[in-house]
Amino acid sequence: MDDFAALWALELVSPGELRAWRRRCASVEEAIAMATESGCLPGRLGRALAVRGGCLDVLLGEGRQRLEADLARVSLPEVALRDAENDGVLEKAGMPGPFGVVAGVAELPPGPRLAIVGTRHLPPGEALRAREWIDNLLSQVACTVVSGGAYGIDSLAHQAALAHGRPMIVVLAGGLVHAGPAGSREALFRIAGSGGAVLSAWPPGRAPMPAMFVERNRHIAALADAVLVVRAPARSGALGTAREAMRLRRAVAAVPGPLEADCFRGCHALIRSGATLVESARHVRDLLGSGADSTQSSLLPMMARTARQLPTDPVERRLWAILDGRGGVTLDALLLELPGIQPGGLHAALLSMELSGHVVMEPGGHVRAVER
Amino acid sequence: MDDFAALWALELVSPGELRAWRRRCASVEEAIAMATESGCLPGRLGRALAVRGGCLDVLLGEGRQRLEADLARVSLPEVALRDAENDGVLEKAGMPGPFGVVAGVAELPPGPRLAIVGTRHLPPGEALRAREWIDNLLSQVACTVVSGGAYGIDSLAHQAALAHGRPMIVVLAGGLVHAGPAGSREALFRIAGSGGAVLSAWPPGRAPMPAMFVERNRHIAALADAVLVVRAPARSGALGTAREAMRLRRAVAAVPGPLEADCFRGCHALIRSGATLVESARHVRDLLGSGADSTQSSLLPMMARTARQLPTDPVERRLWAILDGRGGVTLDALLLELPGIQPGGLHAALLSMELSGHVVMEPGGHVRAVER
Repeated sequence: MDDFAALWALELVSPGELRAWRRRCASVEEAIAMATESGCLPGRLGRALAVRGGCLDVLLGEGRQRLEADLARVSLPEVALRDAENDGVLEKAGMPGPFGVVAGVAELPPGPRLAIVGTRHLPPGEALRAREWIDNLLSQVACTVVSGGAYGIDSLAHQAALAHGRPMIVVLAGGLVHAGPAGSREALFRIAGSGGAVLSAWPPGRAPMPAMFVERNRHIAALADAVLVVRAPARSGALGTAREAMRLRRAVAAVPGPLEADCFRGCHALIRSGATLVESARHVRDLLGSGADSTQSSLLPMMARTARQLPTDPVERRLWAILDGRGGVTLDALLLELPGIQPGGLHAALLSMELSGHVVMEPGGHVRAVER
Repeated sequence: MDDFAALWALELVSPGELRAWRRRCASVEEAIAMATESGCLPGRLGRALAVRGGCLDVLLGEGRQRLEADLARVSLPEVALRDAENDGVLEKAGMPGPFGVVAGVAELPPGPRLAIVGTRHLPPGEALRAREWIDNLLSQVACTVVSGGAYGIDSLAHQAALAHGRPMIVVLAGGLVHAGPAGSREALFRIAGSGGAVLSAWPPGRAPMPAMFVERNRHIAALADAVLVVRAPARSGALGTAREAMRLRRAVAAVPGPLEADCFRGCHALIRSGATLVESARHVRDLLGSGADSTQSSLLPMMARTARQLPTDPVERRLWAILDGRGGVTLDALLLELPGIQPGGLHAALLSMELSGHVVMEPGGHVRAVER
């Protein structure tokens, strides 16, 4: 990374000032000399330099070391700070620059790009239905999947894209160091390492804040040829992504569902606003055009469905030991067999195991292990 | 009824010829003389006259007596043969004439007209959900309900319209003598007797044929300001009504549902073709405009929900005797307790009793009597 990129990544100069500096000056030294002379050296940079006896090389050297250590902990492949004004991927995503961070491929994968978005909070029964629907979709539609790297629908989109060898672009809210919940780091690594990319518009150490999710959703809409809302309640961030996509004249679609299920209220509202109702993979293919016709995977599937591993989370391991080889067990019975686990914790573990395909929730509230 | 109308009702002259006769001649006698002279007296009329020694008065007198007896058996109030070319109701329905049959009011009730259409074959669980939805709709939306007088959604629309005092127009396929399945005659009587009407484009004795249902659906679309499809599988006659309404630039709406339920496939297809997705009474009110704002009934509710009578059908009576006062009973147990009843007959009786509010189908396939 050049010195301007390092200043941006270390958040010593605001993006706006940095853009101005790059336009006017050939080097960071020249920009600092000019700013010092006119009495407008940014305070944070001034203080950091003063501590290092005014030595820019020492400051940037230390900073680069710290950044590299931080990024190494996230362990994503091919991480690069890229110039947003001269980079096809960041430009396409409408990232404001002057820099952005990309892990994975240097160019956008070929073919149509489909954003698969929706709620992070899926009711247990719906998680399984949504998982099957998205899995069937990506088994039949050739596309690059764009998503947000969160729980719920995002997570189901990751799993299905990896299973069917569809390249994936994950756009993060916040810096790369905060890439997704810990449990999804491994998925992000596989995404970036298998023809896909993980993008961030923010310096690597920037912690996610609510407003960044709104901006991230704009980047997703900008990157996508079509936005598909799979499940969304009345007030879901996914609706913001869809509305931004409508503004940008991208195709927008939503899946309908029972009137009784809250997680379809947002989908229905979108369809009422002009989004296309989609029921099937064929409907989504119609939306994306001929580029999505191939049912061949663009990549080698990374996650075979049959090679399922045991859960790694300790609560999930205890649950698995109870459920494996048994018929349906009620939640009350499970709580009795798991002293020390609260209902909320049990619910979260079951949802995670349902998403990973280890258990299914049966009608009447019984939990059953899926045979391997 | 004048002599031309009597000839039409007795089907002695085709509608096309009759239209021509009326335009050219002042009386039926004059028309018959003209036709006889030019050698083109319709065969059926010629034979019927010959049997009565050429005496038109005898022929029409006998015919009128037979018609009156037939119509008396149907026992609908205020039955009139009306001139389709000079009648607001028949003209609005686009009936081809030269005559049509109307039971009930002489004019269309005021306010917006909403056609409520859908499948005749509701799966048991869906019948209850659809019933509640339509009931809630008509409790909140002031409109005249237009429907087809059949089973399924049509029947639910009748019941809810009567319960909430909304006037109703039923358009029949076939002649008035064949008005609806026997079980719904009482409902038709109440519809025609309480500010609504029962219409038919055919001579009273004409038996319904498949093509007439298609034509009847066109009359429903023409009469309605908006067509609402509540449940419709992929090949449902209701879709024809909706498509005709689109062609006539009426508002068309459909209710979405789970992807797994076949009875929403047609609804989803319509929404994909441009129909408005509606979830709630508010959405339907938006569709109909300000005329539907009043939540006051236009009529006195004719059917109090609490004054439910015992079933009259013998199978339903036996079922009721078994179920009344007991908890949920499985279908298998019911079949054991009803020797001589086949599964198909049991299913039909249960659906009828579910629609009439006598029983509910519980999850897991248990049947339970509704407490009075």
